[in-house]
Amino acid sequence: MSQVWKDYQEKNKDRFLNEMLDLLRIPSVSAKSEHKTDMLTCAEAVKKSMLNAGCDKAEVMATDGHPVVYGEKLIDPSKPTVLVYGHYDVQPAEPLELWTNPPFEPTIIDGKVFARGSADDKGQFYMHVKALETLVKTNTMTTNIKFLIEGEEEVGSPNLGKFVAAHKDLLKADVILISDSSMLSMENPSLDTGVRGLSYIEVEVTAANRDLHSGTYGGAVANPITILAKMIASCHDENNHITIPGFYDDVVVAGPEERALINKAPYDEKEYSEELGVKELWGEKGYTTYERTGIRPTIEINGIWGGYQGEGAKTVLPSKATAKISARLVPNQSSHKMTEKLLNYFTSIAPASVIVKAFEHHGGEPYMTPIDSKGYQAASKAVETTFGKAPIPVRGGGSIPICSILERELGIKIIFMGFGLDNDNLHSPNEKYNIENYYKGIETIPYFHKFFADMN
Amino acid sequence: MSQVWKDYQEKNKDRFLNEMLDLLRIPSVSAKSEHKTDMLTCAEAVKKSMLNAGCDKAEVMATDGHPVVYGEKLIDPSKPTVLVYGHYDVQPAEPLELWTNPPFEPTIIDGKVFARGSADDKGQFYMHVKALETLVKTNTMTTNIKFLIEGEEEVGSPNLGKFVAAHKDLLKADVILISDSSMLSMENPSLDTGVRGLSYIEVEVTAANRDLHSGTYGGAVANPITILAKMIASCHDENNHITIPGFYDDVVVAGPEERALINKAPYDEKEYSEELGVKELWGEKGYTTYERTGIRPTIEINGIWGGYQGEGAKTVLPSKATAKISARLVPNQSSHKMTEKLLNYFTSIAPASVIVKAFEHHGGEPYMTPIDSKGYQAASKAVETTFGKAPIPVRGGGSIPICSILERELGIKIIFMGFGLDNDNLHSPNEKYNIENYYKGIETIPYFHKFFADMN
Repeated sequence: MSQVWKDYQEKNKDRFLNEMLDLLRIPSVSAKSEHKTDMLTCAEAVKKSMLNAGCDKAEVMATDGHPVVYGEKLIDPSKPTVLVYGHYDVQPAEPLELWTNPPFEPTIIDGKVFARGSADDKGQFYMHVKALETLVKTNTMTTNIKFLIEGEEEVGSPNLGKFVAAHKDLLKADVILISDSSMLSMENPSLDTGVRGLSYIEVEVTAANRDLHSGTYGGAVANPITILAKMIASCHDENNHITIPGFYDDVVVAGPEERALINKAPYDEKEYSEELGVKELWGEKGYTTYERTGIRPTIEINGIWGGYQGEGAKTVLPSKATAKISARLVPNQSSHKMTEKLLNYFTSIAPASVIVKAFEHHGGEPYMTPIDSKGYQAASKAVETTFGKAPIPVRGGGSIPICSILERELGIKIIFMGFGLDNDNLHSPNEKYNIENYYKGIETIPYFHKFFADMN
Repeated sequence: MSQVWKDYQEKNKDRFLNEMLDLLRIPSVSAKSEHKTDMLTCAEAVKKSMLNAGCDKAEVMATDGHPVVYGEKLIDPSKPTVLVYGHYDVQPAEPLELWTNPPFEPTIIDGKVFARGSADDKGQFYMHVKALETLVKTNTMTTNIKFLIEGEEEVGSPNLGKFVAAHKDLLKADVILISDSSMLSMENPSLDTGVRGLSYIEVEVTAANRDLHSGTYGGAVANPITILAKMIASCHDENNHITIPGFYDDVVVAGPEERALINKAPYDEKEYSEELGVKELWGEKGYTTYERTGIRPTIEINGIWGGYQGEGAKTVLPSKATAKISARLVPNQSSHKMTEKLLNYFTSIAPASVIVKAFEHHGGEPYMTPIDSKGYQAASKAVETTFGKAPIPVRGGGSIPICSILERELGIKIIFMGFGLDNDNLHSPNEKYNIENYYKGIETIPYFHKFFADMN
């Protein structure tokens, strides 16, 4: 079978790439209301691509937010069904001035496609569309394939839970397959065995009812930036342990065996630091880098602003300061409970000289998938087939908030088979996806379907 | 004499107001290079207004930055000379969305002129131009009058020192008179006996060489916002005492008598707090509000930014965070020494996981003027004449960096005769100047010249 796939893919590789580039040209930024029309345009393009690839049915389906694109190619009800999840929305591209090329004009340099969404997740979910095309056009389908491509992953999938609950029959499957993560490297392929959860809040501190002259009032009225800084500083102790009451309460502490497994992944601290341009890493005392990003919860300040940010100097004592703050969660922390804890923490520690407003942006539960499942085994075998090396199971640091909801509503497990790399600049300027990884993904996915069908 | 002044001013009051409004329409923001042409336009308008008012000579004089406007009306070399200092540049108007009316379209509501620069300092220095006109047109000049109106006060007067040193003869005078401050209230007029000094720096913290995904890297790489917040938080202890090494070293500690005098000024904490919309004030333990803003040095964070600041949520671990930080200084602190201390503090406390760049924006020395001088006595008598009440001597919280330089270069004392109010929203959205105060200033200034001439 492999030869017919290879031949078909080789013959169509330029078109496969160009179609992906077309998708990247649509600025489908879900967080910003000004891109509402682009979101619809992108959803329609995804639908069309599914039909072109060989789906019998594809549909843009409304939600209370940005629509979902559903597609399917069903061959036989007795065969297993794979539900492919992905997302066509992307992160905001700001800060724009740091992009070498415009974020929505994909540019190929040294075998890499630079564009917002190239790796996260348009380039990755589109591998599944092209894998389906390969299977359909070579008449080698062994599973039923369904697509659930949403438009709100980057804003926490606020409407997908309701959508899935309302379409359980439509989405019925035996396994969920997601390519929205990375592997260690092309030489050391890996499969994620879980993702961290997320609690994302915003905290606004208001002191005086207006900006004040820092000379006339400085020293007598609270400075909201100083107060917010004190609140942020209070989140970590000198060992970078988080000090928010109850923060670690529900954390499942990893045992020596699990920690040993995590630390077996190839890791070179010098190389890791140099690639990031830092002299020293920074994290919770007593844990290695992969433990810090995999099995430990964290608090990050994602953004902060207040007062004068322009050229030169302005002697203002500002009225307001605001921060976007998020926690990454591990099993068995609950996003809902953590959000409550965070909101409560930031409102309760504020002095009476300021007013604090804190609200939730979104959240998602941590998720783990067992490595002894048929799905994981099929993915592992598929990667081994095309990479020549069995993938290392690792814990992913990112979050896909919908995972726990998908499992709960559909009663099936999720398999993460990501083909990105950690240095793809996800959520950053100059996001890229290596063309080699894109093709490797399209090559690998058909094997997943074959092995999964064989096992069932 | 008073009746002829009164008659002249009454007859011309509408024009006096309209001319001030015309000046406010020019967006002379010295901090922003995009306003370079506006700065020149404004300087020319100031020059023209001096000639129209009766100056024999007025000139726009180049500096290495924005030009100075010099004007003079000399009547007799044997008479005393008053040098009026003011500035035609204004603070940036941002955040624009908080202005009820556009900052450079002066709007009159309830007897107040709302516009950037209305009180600081166009409306205030222009009182002197109209006072000169009053004296010239009523043939009642008793002093020689010189104007030194600069265009860089809001950026720390970086070029005025050199200008003054190069034009000592031109600027020769017996006293310097400045209206660039406020009084307690119309019912409780006051005169400032000093201004605080200033050290203004910017601190930029860089962690990784690019924005990162907060899931993939969160927990393993320093967050520059967290680090900057810790650095800012470390500046004050729990009593809001500043903890930067050596910060208070050169402070002249006010004795019980001076403190008693400061606290004699009418003050209602409830009213003060309510006007600012705060439940509680915030400041250094052991000092009253007027002490905190008058005789104590402070540190304020004037601005902060880093990471994602847009709509919604972005799970980014930012590369950079930046803050604008300034200290207000009191006698005998040195701005130069303090700037060194601040730069050193912020670069030395940073962990090795980040790179800190810190640089100076500008600074200025604190300044005190004795209340037994002829100039202060003339000002006090002038205010008493028109307000019916002797002004209270108070310490101003703001800074006029050029004061110490003017005194050093010209060998004469500065008198602060401000007619603004603390709630004029200086440096804030909706800056305003009460028309009543404007007219009261124009009414009072001729008396200053008369009394100062009488004493000499």
